[in-house]
Amino acid sequence: MLNRVRSAVAHLVSSGGAPPSRPKSPDLPNATSAPPAAPPQAPRSPPARAGSGGATPARTVEARASFSRPTFLQLSPGGLRRADDHAGRAVQSPPDTGRRLPWSTGYAEVINAGKSRHNEDQACCEVVYVEGRRSVSGAPREPSRGQGLCFYYWGLFDGHAGGGAAEMASRLLHRHIREQLKDLVEILQDPLPPPLCLPSTPGAPGSSDSSQLVGPQSCWSSQKEVTHESLVVGAIENAFQLMDEQMARERRGHQVEGGCCALVVVYLLGKVYVANAGDSRAIIVRNGEIIPMSREFTPETERQRLQLLGFLKPELLGGEFTHLEFPRRVQPKELGQRMLYRDQNMTGWAYKKIELEDLRFPLVCGEGKKARVMATIGVTRGLGDHNLRVCSSTLPIKPFLSCFPEVRVYDLTQYEHCPDDVLVLGTDGLWDVTSDCEVAATVDRVLSAYEPNDPSRYTALAQALVLGARGTPRDRGWRLPNNKLGSGDDISVFVIPLGGPGSYS
Amino acid sequence: MLNRVRSAVAHLVSSGGAPPSRPKSPDLPNATSAPPAAPPQAPRSPPARAGSGGATPARTVEARASFSRPTFLQLSPGGLRRADDHAGRAVQSPPDTGRRLPWSTGYAEVINAGKSRHNEDQACCEVVYVEGRRSVSGAPREPSRGQGLCFYYWGLFDGHAGGGAAEMASRLLHRHIREQLKDLVEILQDPLPPPLCLPSTPGAPGSSDSSQLVGPQSCWSSQKEVTHESLVVGAIENAFQLMDEQMARERRGHQVEGGCCALVVVYLLGKVYVANAGDSRAIIVRNGEIIPMSREFTPETERQRLQLLGFLKPELLGGEFTHLEFPRRVQPKELGQRMLYRDQNMTGWAYKKIELEDLRFPLVCGEGKKARVMATIGVTRGLGDHNLRVCSSTLPIKPFLSCFPEVRVYDLTQYEHCPDDVLVLGTDGLWDVTSDCEVAATVDRVLSAYEPNDPSRYTALAQALVLGARGTPRDRGWRLPNNKLGSGDDISVFVIPLGGPGSYS
Repeated sequence: MLNRVRSAVAHLVSSGGAPPSRPKSPDLPNATSAPPAAPPQAPRSPPARAGSGGATPARTVEARASFSRPTFLQLSPGGLRRADDHAGRAVQSPPDTGRRLPWSTGYAEVINAGKSRHNEDQACCEVVYVEGRRSVSGAPREPSRGQGLCFYYWGLFDGHAGGGAAEMASRLLHRHIREQLKDLVEILQDPLPPPLCLPSTPGAPGSSDSSQLVGPQSCWSSQKEVTHESLVVGAIENAFQLMDEQMARERRGHQVEGGCCALVVVYLLGKVYVANAGDSRAIIVRNGEIIPMSREFTPETERQRLQLLGFLKPELLGGEFTHLEFPRRVQPKELGQRMLYRDQNMTGWAYKKIELEDLRFPLVCGEGKKARVMATIGVTRGLGDHNLRVCSSTLPIKPFLSCFPEVRVYDLTQYEHCPDDVLVLGTDGLWDVTSDCEVAATVDRVLSAYEPNDPSRYTALAQALVLGARGTPRDRGWRLPNNKLGSGDDISVFVIPLGGPGSYS
Repeated sequence: MLNRVRSAVAHLVSSGGAPPSRPKSPDLPNATSAPPAAPPQAPRSPPARAGSGGATPARTVEARASFSRPTFLQLSPGGLRRADDHAGRAVQSPPDTGRRLPWSTGYAEVINAGKSRHNEDQACCEVVYVEGRRSVSGAPREPSRGQGLCFYYWGLFDGHAGGGAAEMASRLLHRHIREQLKDLVEILQDPLPPPLCLPSTPGAPGSSDSSQLVGPQSCWSSQKEVTHESLVVGAIENAFQLMDEQMARERRGHQVEGGCCALVVVYLLGKVYVANAGDSRAIIVRNGEIIPMSREFTPETERQRLQLLGFLKPELLGGEFTHLEFPRRVQPKELGQRMLYRDQNMTGWAYKKIELEDLRFPLVCGEGKKARVMATIGVTRGLGDHNLRVCSSTLPIKPFLSCFPEVRVYDLTQYEHCPDDVLVLGTDGLWDVTSDCEVAATVDRVLSAYEPNDPSRYTALAQALVLGARGTPRDRGWRLPNNKLGSGDDISVFVIPLGGPGSYS
């Protein structure tokens, strides 16, 4: 997320107090954790011992209290210092000797803490157990039906304008998802379609008799069928919103600075749900074929949504911005001339006569990595950013940002996967310098060098992808083999085997 | 467009006065017609003689003054009566003997006037000459540079809640496009990129010196490149808007009743622009492969746009509707229970506790062909509908409808087309009962039965497609070969050969 929020917002970044020493509660499959509404709020620090998920964090990096890396990396104090060393740009992965990540997941990262001190990527990989909240059908739950659900969870969080949001999301978003799924535990395991209406109190009868429908409207003559899958999608969407609302509530007390992109994968009951809010990206590489599993949300891809909002709610522009887009800044001397523009309804361009209010700064400007909303932020979806304001102004930017992910679903049971079929998640540090095809080529190259049943092959692949995006130090900076500049941003990669060594259950 | 606007709006349909006898001005390549701002407004009636594009319309169907068919059909009074006969459901095409449609285009239609008296499909096929408005570069235009542009134009207009909008659009939309292109005649023929800024008065120098840019913002360090293609897209988009505004201005004086979907194709300088607003559809069939060239805009496909508008502008819901979607109508006795819902940010479903305002009618309801906005209309983009109101209410629906098309571009020069490669345009009467694959199969079957240089093969194909969607009369209605019901709606089809008999220029 380097350079995606302009330096103008640096003053928003609090240096933070000393972190409380309360440890991060682990989400183990057999534990029912506290709801996320009252979360433990310690920044993650590395545990003193490898493999101790719930250990009291060691205060090894006093000078950078806000700097933390995922617990599953099991970093020693020396490893944490290496991660924090911008000159070395070490690639870090979970140790081969420790507890493996669930599902033999591969992970690697390079964190450029020296350059983007408060914007580190964060990551999370968990198996989460969901206990049903109660019997939603109203009847007292029988012990045999009281089985909960397990989901596998992977998350990448690319922070900007402060590390707090990414750190908090990596710690809590999966708990919000769990909370949303609690009501659905029985429904999702019932082969019948989900009930449209649930009784308000246990024991009261549900009302799903469509013969009682009123109204003459033929558009209501039938009821929509809602799938189990769409309930999971709705649960993930609402979890993102609740996570964002929690950040808003707690931003003062707990230094939830900045915001973050969030790319999350949930595996539940045979299906993979990929939820993306921001400019990270996920692809499946299956038998060499590339299947995009997300799209990026930037000022360019969401231009029309942003412009429409500015058009419908001009008060959000504060008299400082225009919702129209121009190919470059309009100059006062051009008043009365005709310039190319696009409004919220257009994908093409046309000429319009420049009027006084066209001299305002455009809501959306720039191209590619330099595209910005309100000249400030380069991503348009994600979590946090509640304090983000336009440079030298009090105008809030948050109304233009969406916390809602796009969720794509991949049915793992519809295809016979081989050990070389993988889902690759990466932050923009990877994708800025690596194409989908280059990733697919690396998948082929690395995995074919390992035995299919060697569980370390996915970590090796993640490392190769991170290395390939970082490059190697040469005379003039970090360079890729083609001599182009490597990514100077944080780079985080998950490699999730889709037909891997059989450790799915 | 049958059944796409509920009968509740029937009272809006004026029976109309006697039409003025002013003829429709033809748009011939060598003629510069009057601008659309002051249009001839006669409903199209069939000319008395075949081939006479500009003849004074014969008043052959006094009892149905609003009933008209495209001039290019060259219908005799008897042919017009056949078109108006619902029992016979004659398939009509331009006569083999008359002037062929430009580009050997095939066309066929079946109009169910007896069933949908005021909602007829309309069609237009023209070659339009665009004379430059003036030298946009500021210099007096030299004669050699004053060459205008020609574009080929096809339009299908599927009317609802009155025939006026479709009739007016078929008569005028291409003129609005011509007006929009007039400023671009020189720019589009200049190999240089379009100037970002034009002088306000001829002779004044343009200002496109990016070194004069002010402001420290790096998102403005460069200027966007705007392509010629995107100027044509912008021209088409703005033409749709101006057409819609003209309908709003003239709806009282000239009985522009109802609204219409519009599917328009422009061929200009080697590229095919397909602009769609509504639920008509265009596909290219190329070497057997199907390339979708449009998508449908319905309450289902535009649900989130509609809900967002209702959420941001609740006054548009008039206290009668809720922007939330439910899988069926909520009943008062369900207050306090939990029901599935979706808001504007969600693609999945979740449960919410039913509150009093959830008992309002949902802004979007129903599925498939029964989906409706405000329980009234089944398409969400198109032209007209300025008078459309919710049944037994004064609440206007137009704010939720968009007149903007989605424009897709196909570069004809990028592929060597054979005579069997075609662009097929159809109203929903075709697509409701015919899949893309079935259309492709019919393309193959019909065209292979004709010589490649037989120009009548495309009309034969259009007829086969219309017949295949209409079916044949049997015991219980019009049936398809598979015994399913044929389409009871108007069916209109253009077949545009992409590599046809060389009549492109």
